[in-house]
Amino acid sequence: MNKPAERTEPVPEATSHRLSLLLRALRGLETAGVHTATSYEIAARFGLNSAQIRKDLAQFGEFGVRGVGYRVGELKAHLKALMGLSKTRALGIAGAGNLGQALADSRNFNAEGFRVAALFDVDGRKVGGRSRTGVPIYDVQALEDRVKELRIEIGILAVPAEGAISLAQRLAAAGVGALLNFAPVTVPALPGILVKNVDLTFFLENLSFQLAESKT
Amino acid sequence: MNKPAERTEPVPEATSHRLSLLLRALRGLETAGVHTATSYEIAARFGLNSAQIRKDLAQFGEFGVRGVGYRVGELKAHLKALMGLSKTRALGIAGAGNLGQALADSRNFNAEGFRVAALFDVDGRKVGGRSRTGVPIYDVQALEDRVKELRIEIGILAVPAEGAISLAQRLAAAGVGALLNFAPVTVPALPGILVKNVDLTFFLENLSFQLAESKT
Repeated sequence: MNKPAERTEPVPEATSHRLSLLLRALRGLETAGVHTATSYEIAARFGLNSAQIRKDLAQFGEFGVRGVGYRVGELKAHLKALMGLSKTRALGIAGAGNLGQALADSRNFNAEGFRVAALFDVDGRKVGGRSRTGVPIYDVQALEDRVKELRIEIGILAVPAEGAISLAQRLAAAGVGALLNFAPVTVPALPGILVKNVDLTFFLENLSFQLAESKT
Repeated sequence: MNKPAERTEPVPEATSHRLSLLLRALRGLETAGVHTATSYEIAARFGLNSAQIRKDLAQFGEFGVRGVGYRVGELKAHLKALMGLSKTRALGIAGAGNLGQALADSRNFNAEGFRVAALFDVDGRKVGGRSRTGVPIYDVQALEDRVKELRIEIGILAVPAEGAISLAQRLAAAGVGALLNFAPVTVPALPGILVKNVDLTFFLENLSFQLAESKT
């Protein structure tokens, strides 16, 4: 990365999504023992768009080597650093119901860059226990203490709609930098932290829309 | 809707997402007893973009009334029809683990337009039982029969990576029109049906990216 471009705008979600796909492609190449690859080779092998790969990367610097392509390991390391994935961020999940435990135990939430450090619940029968893969379940009353102690950077809300917003405020006040909300209610912007509301209905509605379109 | 525009391209996911948000806004207005609203009023109230609302809707016909704005109930009914949400589609979830049961019981998956009709599992201790909200758990061996009998239109994969692709193929062969995959493996395109792979890592990676950017 010789000449990082000047950036002032936040990265659009679509770019971030494409860089996530590229990062997976690079991991795949590395596993396959491939050391260098052109954008065309990466695109063909992983169903991506080569021009888009070059365009996305150009926003962040000069990564390719003329006549060679990209050095897989090097580009992967750069991308990870760029996306803040070089270190492991601790996640804390509020709600140890089916969804919270599914997320705590999922490969997705314990992938490179992330580790679920804690579940929180109000249910005394769950508190003190662990999820299937061993994530400890703490009393939600100790939320603030545990967030600090475990250096939790991202809070996940997997609770019913009712308690979600006050928990979001507590997590923000306790010092998390970002929130991912799965509760069926929109958590509004909170000062100083990132909030992402995930609504799985959108996926269903998109499929329904396409099913309806395909019949016309 | 006087003059539906000619459309040949599939609806982009971003448009579908915005129309989902608009549909929610219209439901909100209806609940609040509002009968007509301009795109400016809808945009201001729900944090949307008024020009984008008009542009998105213009793709599908003429919905507004000059000098009045949109008739809320009418536009909502049109949008629901357009998105295939006027009828209730039956969903079938493969995998009655934490994630499958969380989805079966979630408000998101039993919202207007959708109803979870069945869970499927291999575990004999679960088969014959029900989820917390009463969704029956069937033996996965009976998948094909139940998909036909219950007219399941959308299959959801909430199983480990290992069995996901063969289950996707069985659901497709049994006649579902679309698949939503939560398993940590990419289900490839299958002939004649829609496949949407949902990977929750992207949300985490996007937050991580933004956290990294905000520190530079």
